[in-house]
Amino acid sequence: MIIIGEKINTSIKAIRPAVENQDAGVIQEVALKQVEAGAHYIDVNCGTFPTKEPELLQWLVETVQQVTDKPLCIDSPNPNALKKALAANKNGKPLVNSITAEKERYDAILPLIVEYDTSVVALCMDDSGMPETADERLAIAERLVESLNKEGIKLEDIYFDPMVRPVGTGSHYGVVALDTISRIMKEFPGVHTTCGLSNISFGLPGRKLINQAFLILAIGAGLDSAILDPLDKRIMSFVYAAELLKDKDPYCLNYITAFREGRLDI
Amino acid sequence: MIIIGEKINTSIKAIRPAVENQDAGVIQEVALKQVEAGAHYIDVNCGTFPTKEPELLQWLVETVQQVTDKPLCIDSPNPNALKKALAANKNGKPLVNSITAEKERYDAILPLIVEYDTSVVALCMDDSGMPETADERLAIAERLVESLNKEGIKLEDIYFDPMVRPVGTGSHYGVVALDTISRIMKEFPGVHTTCGLSNISFGLPGRKLINQAFLILAIGAGLDSAILDPLDKRIMSFVYAAELLKDKDPYCLNYITAFREGRLDI
Repeated sequence: MIIIGEKINTSIKAIRPAVENQDAGVIQEVALKQVEAGAHYIDVNCGTFPTKEPELLQWLVETVQQVTDKPLCIDSPNPNALKKALAANKNGKPLVNSITAEKERYDAILPLIVEYDTSVVALCMDDSGMPETADERLAIAERLVESLNKEGIKLEDIYFDPMVRPVGTGSHYGVVALDTISRIMKEFPGVHTTCGLSNISFGLPGRKLINQAFLILAIGAGLDSAILDPLDKRIMSFVYAAELLKDKDPYCLNYITAFREGRLDI
Repeated sequence: MIIIGEKINTSIKAIRPAVENQDAGVIQEVALKQVEAGAHYIDVNCGTFPTKEPELLQWLVETVQQVTDKPLCIDSPNPNALKKALAANKNGKPLVNSITAEKERYDAILPLIVEYDTSVVALCMDDSGMPETADERLAIAERLVESLNKEGIKLEDIYFDPMVRPVGTGSHYGVVALDTISRIMKEFPGVHTTCGLSNISFGLPGRKLINQAFLILAIGAGLDSAILDPLDKRIMSFVYAAELLKDKDPYCLNYITAFREGRLDI
């Protein structure tokens, strides 16, 4: 399971002022804690500062890579911000978060992915808006696979996000997301699937409970990456347990090691 | 999700003396609490008293049905005990737990299922011992479906137990169980699948965590019944959340009602 640590995001209360004031210590501490907790990528997002986003995103990249070699997940729909951040990146192949099949966004972001030889999160949506069914999502994924492949981007560098819609707004949206994940993993062997956990529970009580169950079901459906808070011990515990149950943890070694090191919330 | 409440079992510390001393109050309280918590069947098991099992199982049936109309899951491999218990049953169609494809057991228990027109838990095992693969389990299930159907037992009265083996003794056993559930539900539409949650985690630390994740994955694979402790608020919360995410809860009504009534552990 490829964990993308989501905590360096200016929509999070404690992060916003740290980025605004360029307080490197706060950001670096959050980065290091996520690495220690098992993050494989460190997401950086300062989208709540739209006018200063390019400079601040570059600063975030420089700040984080002073303390860790973990690759970065550079999280912005803004090509200018992505360009500055990618030019500053020294931490190995980054993950650009994200491209879509919307023509304008695709055309603006694709050249950066190619120029900087990155991996990319690809959202299953296009100019017709948020898709309704799993079939629509698969059709978009197929078009993205074809066009990205044509540009030399390998399957293993594509992280499809199924575009999770809240189950509170349509009781079928859980199944739509799970079907999308399982079909993408079957139809395009080699690609990854990833997603955040909070959309699914939007508007409902007990969101953490729903998010935990959704992550486990999604791992059951084949999800092999997630954008989450690796400092949430409970959610990480379920990652270990679900991987164990899906035969992704030979001899239960990761699970037992996590237990011995006190990293499981049991 | 059909919940079989597992708490009236003499292998449980507080139940053993209550059955031994025929303390009806204790048993009836546990029965009622399970019904209030959402159990659809009340399992009764006094297998730790092998010599007195027929009399005690009959007493358990009589005792429980004094306080609830919920159907009973009559849990014994002993045909004499089953016969006495079934003869005493007045709570609608009971669930006999269990038959297998072992010749001697099958031949001894089948007549009781037919005579008393019961539903039945059918374990995916035969005289060759505990099966290794999902294929072996499916082959046993197919033979059981055929032979039970021939005796007039309908598909909806069969609850297949996939025979869960501990993931600590073979890291593929989680996938074997999940595959068995999903294939049985696809190949024999109309049957149920059920299982206990504790075998999967045998020998490992953090068993509750593994059991919770396994239940959610199993619901993801199609499991529509489980033998569990309905007084375990956390496991019941995950039942509600997983059913919501699998589109088994139109308009999230069950989930939201459980939340409002304080039955979710969030």
